Amino acid sequence: MQEGQLRYLVTGCAGFIGSTLTQRLLATGHSVVGYDNFSTGQEDFVRSARQHANFHLVRADVLDLKTLSDSMAGSELIFHLAANADVRFGVEHPRRDLEQNTIATHNVLEAMRRNGIDRIAFSSSGSVYGESSIAPTPEDAPFPVQTSLYGASKAAAEGLIAAYSAAFGFQAYIFRLVSILGERYTHGHVFDFYRQLMADPGRLYVLGNGRQRKSYLYVGDCIDAMLLAIERANDRVNVFNLGHDGFCEVNDSIRWICAALGLRPEIVYSGGDRGWVGDSPFIFLDTHRIRALGWKPKRSIQQGVLATLEYLRSNPWLLAARQ
Amino acid sequence: MQEGQLRYLVTGCAGFIGSTLTQRLLATGHSVVGYDNFSTGQEDFVRSARQHANFHLVRADVLDLKTLSDSMAGSELIFHLAANADVRFGVEHPRRDLEQNTIATHNVLEAMRRNGIDRIAFSSSGSVYGESSIAPTPEDAPFPVQTSLYGASKAAAEGLIAAYSAAFGFQAYIFRLVSILGERYTHGHVFDFYRQLMADPGRLYVLGNGRQRKSYLYVGDCIDAMLLAIERANDRVNVFNLGHDGFCEVNDSIRWICAALGLRPEIVYSGGDRGWVGDSPFIFLDTHRIRALGWKPKRSIQQGVLATLEYLRSNPWLLAARQ
Repeated sequence: MQEGQLRYLVTGCAGFIGSTLTQRLLATGHSVVGYDNFSTGQEDFVRSARQHANFHLVRADVLDLKTLSDSMAGSELIFHLAANADVRFGVEHPRRDLEQNTIATHNVLEAMRRNGIDRIAFSSSGSVYGESSIAPTPEDAPFPVQTSLYGASKAAAEGLIAAYSAAFGFQAYIFRLVSILGERYTHGHVFDFYRQLMADPGRLYVLGNGRQRKSYLYVGDCIDAMLLAIERANDRVNVFNLGHDGFCEVNDSIRWICAALGLRPEIVYSGGDRGWVGDSPFIFLDTHRIRALGWKPKRSIQQGVLATLEYLRSNPWLLAARQ
Repeated sequence: MQEGQLRYLVTGCAGFIGSTLTQRLLATGHSVVGYDNFSTGQEDFVRSARQHANFHLVRADVLDLKTLSDSMAGSELIFHLAANADVRFGVEHPRRDLEQNTIATHNVLEAMRRNGIDRIAFSSSGSVYGESSIAPTPEDAPFPVQTSLYGASKAAAEGLIAAYSAAFGFQAYIFRLVSILGERYTHGHVFDFYRQLMADPGRLYVLGNGRQRKSYLYVGDCIDAMLLAIERANDRVNVFNLGHDGFCEVNDSIRWICAALGLRPEIVYSGGDRGWVGDSPFIFLDTHRIRALGWKPKRSIQQGVLATLEYLRSNPWLLAARQ
């Protein structure tokens, strides 16, 4: 490794954000141990990384503390991105978020402690704010009342990370993300809509009333922000909202997608002001804190949605892989 | 049961607060299923309850989901007080708070869901605020950064309770407590100081510099507040700080204790501004919200400390039981 280059361990390295981050780290001269159980991660997403001399892949679960701990030896910073990403099914599997987000994060922290590793970056979520009365919502918004099992599990993981930082001298970077879009995006509304329209171009079912406002961020912009924060922020616990400074309605996104595909489907709304139990009708984050470090998103929300759509059109295997 | 009387399940029924609450509920005509693993609970604390026809004791662990779920059948409100109460040893046993506070609470919620029980009252802690910049700290203080594994585990449990309330229509009462004092108090500084002084009346070791400010509340006042809140507060998720409107320094408490015992020990401070890693030097809660329901504490902090001391002097067996 060159001077200034680090050895990272990335959990969830075969996921949407994790694989994109891994590629970026390798491209800039860093070493990466990638860790993934491939429950939702994709082989295709790590194919190019696996050609790289500075990449080592571990196929295992974050809940397997021994393997996780063994795999961390020698790493200097842990990017903990592995998570239960199916935010909508908390009600059907109420223990899944607890295990895969909270207990899994505890394992990461324990493995770090055992290895003497003291820097962690964590992908949290804007859903930790519940339904905030303040929009855009700043990092120091009033003490939240959780409204989803997913948000609660991410907030719990944040709390563990901060407590470990106080107890064991870790330095932590906690990123509260809006929905992220872009290449390798494998779940969420653009994916669902595209899949539906491929199956039946004449009709599109939409959860809720389509008026849910979302502040999507492009994955490349998200990774820019995370890497900048790690380089420049020096508190013990550094918390950053990452999101776009604008928002769109789900209906806007539908319009962009249908126009790009040249389709005019009948839109059928399930009704109500939210997509599912625990869905927040409006996640819009105040990003002054990360902007003060010099970051701003390079792509608009519409550009992010259309880049995602283009990617899905070029990778039809993904529709099958994520059935 | 008479009309208006409820059937409660109390986890931690053999603990300090749990046993006092159980006795109060039985005395006012309610039925109680008491649940305790007696890891720190005391047989003596449930002796009188066990004479009561409306009391049923289950000796089991909250982590045993099947027994917990079976025991809940027919209860209308769950008082979840079982917890790892040894807040100071998080650093030595980093998984204990996660298991006994967070995962245990998840089990309670799951057992409720399986039984169709939809009301829960939970003993959280003022330590969920970390080291708040605002004192007294209101319930809607800025989003906290956790500073102890104990606080993080309680905050995580709160989040689970709120999320279950949103997902499954539960009604929740979350009480953020300062340190509670009074009869049956079995850990904390009055206990430690009394034990030390019984062993060596000439010297008292004090963690930190003795300047830590604490807002102790008498257990009877705490239970008054919890029962009032359950009766009068009607939001889905009701969060209340419970504490005294004043505070004392640990040094004040030492003075009261030594005067009551007629001792003048040499005081030896370990130094630093906090008692242990994760100890908050100042927990002082804004209690306007619970006061607006008509509650106020009946005992002063000094009266609470002295009642505790009197209880310990009358129950020397406790010193042995809690070695």
